[in-house]
Amino acid sequence: MTSIAVLPGDGIGPEVTDAALDVLDKLDLPLEVRFGDIGWKFWQEEGDPVPERTWKLLEETDTCLLGAITSKPAREADAELSPALRGTGHTFVSPVVQLRQRLGLYANVRPVTDLAEGRFDFTVIRENTEGLYAGLDFHGLDESLWAVVGDHPNASVSGRRNTSATLRLQTRHGIDRILRFGFEHARAQGRRRLTLVDKPNVLRQSGNFLRERLESHAEEYPEIETEILNVDAVALWMVRRPERFQVLVAENMFGDILSDLGAGVMGGLGLAGSGNIGDRGSYFEPVHGSAPGMAGDSRANPTGTVLALAQLLRHVDMPVAAGDMADAVTRAVRSRRAVTYDLGGTATTEQAGAELVEQLRPF
Amino acid sequence: MTSIAVLPGDGIGPEVTDAALDVLDKLDLPLEVRFGDIGWKFWQEEGDPVPERTWKLLEETDTCLLGAITSKPAREADAELSPALRGTGHTFVSPVVQLRQRLGLYANVRPVTDLAEGRFDFTVIRENTEGLYAGLDFHGLDESLWAVVGDHPNASVSGRRNTSATLRLQTRHGIDRILRFGFEHARAQGRRRLTLVDKPNVLRQSGNFLRERLESHAEEYPEIETEILNVDAVALWMVRRPERFQVLVAENMFGDILSDLGAGVMGGLGLAGSGNIGDRGSYFEPVHGSAPGMAGDSRANPTGTVLALAQLLRHVDMPVAAGDMADAVTRAVRSRRAVTYDLGGTATTEQAGAELVEQLRPF
Ligand SMILES: CC(C)[C@H](C(=O)O)[C@@H](O)C(=O)O
Ligand SMILES: CC(C)[C@H](C(=O)O)[C@@H](O)C(=O)O
Repeated sequence: MTSIAVLPGDGIGPEVTDAALDVLDKLDLPLEVRFGDIGWKFWQEEGDPVPERTWKLLEETDTCLLGAITSKPAREADAELSPALRGTGHTFVSPVVQLRQRLGLYANVRPVTDLAEGRFDFTVIRENTEGLYAGLDFHGLDESLWAVVGDHPNASVSGRRNTSATLRLQTRHGIDRILRFGFEHARAQGRRRLTLVDKPNVLRQSGNFLRERLESHAEEYPEIETEILNVDAVALWMVRRPERFQVLVAENMFGDILSDLGAGVMGGLGLAGSGNIGDRGSYFEPVHGSAPGMAGDSRANPTGTVLALAQLLRHVDMPVAAGDMADAVTRAVRSRRAVTYDLGGTATTEQAGAELVEQLRPF
Repeated sequence: MTSIAVLPGDGIGPEVTDAALDVLDKLDLPLEVRFGDIGWKFWQEEGDPVPERTWKLLEETDTCLLGAITSKPAREADAELSPALRGTGHTFVSPVVQLRQRLGLYANVRPVTDLAEGRFDFTVIRENTEGLYAGLDFHGLDESLWAVVGDHPNASVSGRRNTSATLRLQTRHGIDRILRFGFEHARAQGRRRLTLVDKPNVLRQSGNFLRERLESHAEEYPEIETEILNVDAVALWMVRRPERFQVLVAENMFGDILSDLGAGVMGGLGLAGSGNIGDRGSYFEPVHGSAPGMAGDSRANPTGTVLALAQLLRHVDMPVAAGDMADAVTRAVRSRRAVTYDLGGTATTEQAGAELVEQLRPF
């Protein structure tokens, strides 16, 4: 039987997870659900937001649903570590970044759909393991980095102790697998166009490499038209003409920005779900964060989590259940019978969840 | 007498420049206008989109109005160089990047205003000389860079010849001057909040440095509240709640993305103007590109160029004329008497320009 690790996390994570699991229950699928620990509390008390027992759970299960986890700047995180653990070498690393890196979940798949009116429907596929997230962020440069940047006028005025450098890493391994994933996704969904997001008019060397890899893959997918667009133009068109996009492939940071923007275009973070997928595992989560200020208020919109769960079901080869769940979301949004605060209503998380369950009737 | 270099450029650049100069003429100001060469043709025929004579003109004048310049990926640019010049060491560098770097125009100021309804009004201040634009983009890494990145799992699988690294450079010199510029701008405009855009939950070292510099400057501007927001959240809020922003300061690439996004939020690139400002010079331009496919059709919206010109006038200490020009733009947008294609109308560039001239009556 397929097993799912459920990690509610903190903030509004537990609330939206509960609501989503109610919808799952209604479907009565042959799935085993096992709960696990993740989040801020475990950073504070155990020195790691992802305890070892959680990694074990992830190993033993087929996939994972994540609620939300508080994410803070490194410096604030350090200050909240329990006194007993300070100075013992614990460094806060965002738990979602940990999951993506350690489990090799290289593809972050974020559908951007106009649920209310069906005017647009595209997917941002974000590379999840390299780019500016490679962990190569330095301040006060050593000799080898200074040799690379020291001639830049700003650096030479500032000196190496007053210079930061963050490496945006792009590798053939990373590029090839995300492109292949993007093309396969486009083919599976019957899409005809793949847009690679880059900045080739400024980044000449890496841009040439990306283009070369795109051209090489594109040969294997003759039915799919490709284009390379500048990231700034994509941001603009996402707002002005979102219907022009089908499948977007972007490096990590561009993808981070564009997928949050996509959530904005959808009508808010509350509506967006996402999947993080690799060859050895996967996890699914709403795009929104943990909104600690709202925790316990039962105001959060559970829709993004339910859509993440629908993506999960498709991933574990339950396309019919996935489709039913996604259709229920669309009907619930259109019925406007239980509208949460983010969309201008006053419904509670439970009421919005109940409406989703209600809409889940077989047709 | 204050002198302005006018560089119409190519594509729709000359058309929108003409329309803007008509508006300027109507104001009858004591300004000397001198035209100069820039753009794609000069790359093809002379091997540099910014010929030496243009640099000289920029030195001799006080500021500059730029129309638009075609920008293509490096590889396409190389292919269009005149055969006689090939292999003689010419490398295409985007002319706007050249202007910003060589003239030290470190602040790119892009107002985002709801012209039609006045619901939001903020400014993106983009650092213009470092970040991912520092020219440190490499493919096929040498020993010193490989020493830095070679341990990353993706890099070690790919090998150094199949790895790209782009350095995002941030220096105390660069950070301090853009922060100071941002605070001064906020103070001059009576704004109460400055938002620094970063990604501190992922970029620990550079994020700490940025925070430290922000805190140090903020002390001198006690009346201005500061915050640091993640770039992805800013993208989302720009779409959902643009009225929450006043002054945004962002590193180069984040600022590039967010200011195009801002143009989208304003209602399209055709409405957005910008200034590039340094201690030794400045130039002003619409945010849109050269739209080569539309050149000569007289369909382009001249509004962005007129707003850029209004910014220029404010910069050369002609605030009254600047205000009159900006007000004329607002009235023209609201009158909807000459609406160009980008906003759903059929007016020509000339008609839109004439409406702007018409609206320029003293009150
Ligand atoms: C929390 C943060 C590290 C994360 C990211 O930047 O990837 C989040 O913004 C996301 O998009 O999942
Ligand atoms: C043309 C390009 C190099 C430029 C940039 O990226 O800065 C443009 O997008 C802009 O924003 O002015």
